[in-house]
Amino acid sequence: MGTEQKATNIVWHQATVSKSEREQINGHRGATLWLTGLSGSGKSTIANILEKMLWERGVRSYVLDGDNVRHGLNKDLGFSDQDRNENIRRIGEVAKLFTEAGVMTVTAFISPFRQDRDRVREIMNDGDFIEIYVKCDLDECEKRDPKGLYKKARSGEIKEFTGISSPYEEPERAEIVLENTAKTAEQSADEILAYLESNGYLA
Amino acid sequence: MGTEQKATNIVWHQATVSKSEREQINGHRGATLWLTGLSGSGKSTIANILEKMLWERGVRSYVLDGDNVRHGLNKDLGFSDQDRNENIRRIGEVAKLFTEAGVMTVTAFISPFRQDRDRVREIMNDGDFIEIYVKCDLDECEKRDPKGLYKKARSGEIKEFTGISSPYEEPERAEIVLENTAKTAEQSADEILAYLESNGYLA
Repeated sequence: MGTEQKATNIVWHQATVSKSEREQINGHRGATLWLTGLSGSGKSTIANILEKMLWERGVRSYVLDGDNVRHGLNKDLGFSDQDRNENIRRIGEVAKLFTEAGVMTVTAFISPFRQDRDRVREIMNDGDFIEIYVKCDLDECEKRDPKGLYKKARSGEIKEFTGISSPYEEPERAEIVLENTAKTAEQSADEILAYLESNGYLA
Repeated sequence: MGTEQKATNIVWHQATVSKSEREQINGHRGATLWLTGLSGSGKSTIANILEKMLWERGVRSYVLDGDNVRHGLNKDLGFSDQDRNENIRRIGEVAKLFTEAGVMTVTAFISPFRQDRDRVREIMNDGDFIEIYVKCDLDECEKRDPKGLYKKARSGEIKEFTGISSPYEEPERAEIVLENTAKTAEQSADEILAYLESNGYLA
């Protein structure tokens, strides 16, 4: 019995479902679409439109954003430099798990520091990390100010606000740059979808 | 343009894919199957067999275990009481995200403390958290000792090892209790599958 059980265990362990098996059945790759950009640049809106588009094509996708991460997994983190790094590190690790599970994962966080984003790229397999710079002029973001955060940053109520009192480090090797100042979020989501199609991520 | 764009955003935000929409299309519910039990009780083996069974039925599933969590998301955590609590808290939050994404999520961690497991239950929606006690006599676990950990715990090389020098708090309201001492892991996985079927988790 001992030997038989052991042998059975080995067979089953080998049989664990791999990423490539999931991808074959799903008909699309698992990957992380990492949106980065200023507050108000349109990351969350684009992410949600993109998720809907992917959904309509039968692609398994999921959006990680402030709504489902900041009050849950990362609720113990504040806004110190160390906590911001840890915030992005954890999001990167969770995105990796979703990616391994075969999901087209979309993240929508300012993630202003190049080093933090590069660290996430490094833990992923080649091609699994797609950095998408949602480029939008600060003036335009501040004019939109959907959450009234720029106003608070200007008045000093919020300290170290990206673009105002804390730097945003533009990506140097983003796979996609969305010139989102004068575009609708739908157009930007279309661009991402086109990238996924022409690079073999979708069937 | 400003008004039109806003209106478009509202429509799209409403259109974000909900858990119940995912479940309808997937043909099964998203939930967390939380395996708890001593080291060597069979949690990982059962989890892997179960994943394979679910996979063969077209169920979207994913296993969270030491292999993909301890060296990634939770690599900053040690084995102090505080770190153990945080370890389980984070795993619970990630399991919740996977569950919201419509995935049948299987976790395989000793998770010896009742309070930690109850906290995970509390953050989940009713019915989304299924606690599964993989019950196995300490003697049997120690005899199996697949990773040689009991030996190290007995020699004092590992401190605060569950069952030897640190308590295991048995679940008081587990949805499933698997009497795994004398059973094969296949039989235990079958029992979980039967529970999912008879409780409406699978189509």
